[in-house]
Amino acid sequence: MSNHENSWTRLKELLTDLEESESVAPVRKPIDSQHAASRLDLALPEKGIDFDSFMGKLKNLALATPSSASKQFFNQLFAGRDSAAIIGETIAAALNSSMYTWRIAGPQVIIERLLIRELNNIVGYGNGEGTFSPGGSISNLIAMLIARNRFDPNARAKGFNITGTIYTSVEGHYSIRKNAGILGIGRNNVREIHVDDHGRMRADLLEEAITEDKKNGIEPILINATAGTTVRGAFDPFTEIGLIARRHGIWFHVDGAFGGPLLMCEQMRRRFIGVEQSDSFTWDAHKLMGVPLTCSVLLVKEKGTLLHNLYEQAGYLYQGDEDEIEPGMTSIQCGRRNDALKLWSIWQVRGRVGYAEQFSKLLGLIRYAAGIIRNDPLFSIVSEPQSLTLCFEVVGYCSRTICTKLEEQQRALVGFGNIDNRVAIRLVCVNPEMEEEDIAFFFEQIRAITKECNLESR
Amino acid sequence: MSNHENSWTRLKELLTDLEESESVAPVRKPIDSQHAASRLDLALPEKGIDFDSFMGKLKNLALATPSSASKQFFNQLFAGRDSAAIIGETIAAALNSSMYTWRIAGPQVIIERLLIRELNNIVGYGNGEGTFSPGGSISNLIAMLIARNRFDPNARAKGFNITGTIYTSVEGHYSIRKNAGILGIGRNNVREIHVDDHGRMRADLLEEAITEDKKNGIEPILINATAGTTVRGAFDPFTEIGLIARRHGIWFHVDGAFGGPLLMCEQMRRRFIGVEQSDSFTWDAHKLMGVPLTCSVLLVKEKGTLLHNLYEQAGYLYQGDEDEIEPGMTSIQCGRRNDALKLWSIWQVRGRVGYAEQFSKLLGLIRYAAGIIRNDPLFSIVSEPQSLTLCFEVVGYCSRTICTKLEEQQRALVGFGNIDNRVAIRLVCVNPEMEEEDIAFFFEQIRAITKECNLESR
Repeated sequence: MSNHENSWTRLKELLTDLEESESVAPVRKPIDSQHAASRLDLALPEKGIDFDSFMGKLKNLALATPSSASKQFFNQLFAGRDSAAIIGETIAAALNSSMYTWRIAGPQVIIERLLIRELNNIVGYGNGEGTFSPGGSISNLIAMLIARNRFDPNARAKGFNITGTIYTSVEGHYSIRKNAGILGIGRNNVREIHVDDHGRMRADLLEEAITEDKKNGIEPILINATAGTTVRGAFDPFTEIGLIARRHGIWFHVDGAFGGPLLMCEQMRRRFIGVEQSDSFTWDAHKLMGVPLTCSVLLVKEKGTLLHNLYEQAGYLYQGDEDEIEPGMTSIQCGRRNDALKLWSIWQVRGRVGYAEQFSKLLGLIRYAAGIIRNDPLFSIVSEPQSLTLCFEVVGYCSRTICTKLEEQQRALVGFGNIDNRVAIRLVCVNPEMEEEDIAFFFEQIRAITKECNLESR
Repeated sequence: MSNHENSWTRLKELLTDLEESESVAPVRKPIDSQHAASRLDLALPEKGIDFDSFMGKLKNLALATPSSASKQFFNQLFAGRDSAAIIGETIAAALNSSMYTWRIAGPQVIIERLLIRELNNIVGYGNGEGTFSPGGSISNLIAMLIARNRFDPNARAKGFNITGTIYTSVEGHYSIRKNAGILGIGRNNVREIHVDDHGRMRADLLEEAITEDKKNGIEPILINATAGTTVRGAFDPFTEIGLIARRHGIWFHVDGAFGGPLLMCEQMRRRFIGVEQSDSFTWDAHKLMGVPLTCSVLLVKEKGTLLHNLYEQAGYLYQGDEDEIEPGMTSIQCGRRNDALKLWSIWQVRGRVGYAEQFSKLLGLIRYAAGIIRNDPLFSIVSEPQSLTLCFEVVGYCSRTICTKLEEQQRALVGFGNIDNRVAIRLVCVNPEMEEEDIAFFFEQIRAITKECNLESR
């Protein structure tokens, strides 16, 4: 390696500086995109600069980057920072194992297998299999690929040229539509089923759509149900959907990218009833489980499915005698980074019990937030909370403007979403370090904004 | 974040321990996959363990993982370790920016844009565009997706249902075939064109195959040429292929996952003549450029192409006013890790000049290795070196057995590959810290193996 004296000491200093700055300025000052490159001196040099100058530039850059670790960050389905996970990620980078073969990755392969087995157990797949993928969208893509190839067994070899349909709810993730475009299924062949008042896919309308399509000679490929929708955190009715899938012989996928890990929490189990009837499940550990982006797993109930759909012979790569432990044969990538070690690391420190407690606490914070909203006529709930998100309005104010002002004044970072043509502020509680006082502080900031800024109402 | 006192100090200690152990034992003892989990105590605990116990387990695991940073690691198209890159990666994990929007990623988006602009300049695309993807296979996938949608403008919306063909060489990467299966094109519709004595695709046979297909009413979708094939490091004849692509109106992609960065090295430019005629280019920075896995970019000559093929509307995500700077609209993923910062970091320290010098030095080492082979009748070159790989045999011995023995005896980690039905040992020179003495030492190890082990000849 390039031998920079004390480079790891400098890394430690920078991490410490970063944390200190975040405690002073939890929300970064918005930066002008037009001038950021020159102001932060980001240009790529023709000749290399010395290590100290590099560390200086990197520090300036880090301190100007929005912090997703601060307690006033409610903007995404991830938040916080865990040192065990960061340490795991750094060691993974230092080892730089490509996760395709036992020969190169060695015991890192065992880590993946242990995690996949544990997640399969939690979902109720028993002797299932799985693969780490670069994000929930790609996990969904692999599930859809498998379903497409099952629907048309010639697709992989000869090309896909039958019209078939995909079902998801109008509040499902956009990757379902995107992936249909990628896989040759066609975005127009995604049927978006309407939801009930809580944002859950209506099983009756799903069955109607399927029946209608079949009457018109169009066969269904896959039903995508969601465990934790992006905006409302809603859970589709898995038992009913599972029955429909079985009745019609359709692949049943569950996109649990956001909500999946809540399976570890007893009080959420009822939302998942019937989920074990599904054929595949997307589980993102980089959202609720606190590991850095990305760490996503596609779980598949029936062993052998991934190999059947993804294996390619490559003599220069698969040279071991223990073929069953060459994970590259069942992944969508060739060279693949080690996303498992950071999850293993954090799991060592938290344990399954720690995760259950963490989710329980966060669910309590959402109830606490809902209480604040109910007790203040300035606020109004747009959709009752289903899990760890809460959508509300500031009565008489534009949600989008509130969010922009909160950021501009460095008070909080939060986003908005559409629900039944209303634009609502979406509060997300996923940072395990979050406390009631942080939630209270957030609402305080909104009250201040509405008073101080003389915002025009809608 | 979880507040473990001195966690960054512990990280620094572990990184130092790792480096020290590698200097003592550059090749790890092969480990028994059946018992690795229990011997290393890898199980996922029900209750969390204390931080010290976790760090102890992590250290044991790290020290049992094959080291791709050691100087006797010749097994993959990546090697070495750079502290600036590791620091960049760790800070990216600590900031945990999802690279979809300016609002969340801020100046990290600028870093991506600067790198994409620079790489476009190097390839000769002028005002091109690009997207970071999770590996060379996926970069190739995106290129093939674009070509498929150009071939059939209805494919994205209505599904793909025309038969079309893809051309690549028999020594091209397996992801081309795999991706054809994923995209609905069909693996059987990939035509593998034979190569000349140096492993380069034969343009005459390519044109013949295209003409033949067209005569049979099958239209070509894409030609994939390779800049640095996996086994031989060969470069296809871009000028001739470019002419054929233009003549027939076919999308011309270059898979430069391995060899792309050699464009930065003057003495390799002649191998790339005509490459700027291509429409898209896969560039992996995690191979020759020394950044940890993965850091791949798909470059596209014509601006607007990525948006046209990948954009999905998502109101809860794209909430800025500066749409042109929302990179999530042009990526295959939704949530996306920051792969750019580590490349930016190492580039600061090396500069473009430093990379050019590094590649020049490595090319010299390959020549040095070829010299050793020519001067010792025990060795025989199987294919003249084209760039940074060298394929040779140990006369009278099985290449596979030699590789296994080298690993078992902890002497070196190196792989083998098939060339014209011969199995050759593939030496890869990509670690910038490598010196002539390390190469000489490697061949010394093989001599020792053949003497000491009493290996049966083939």
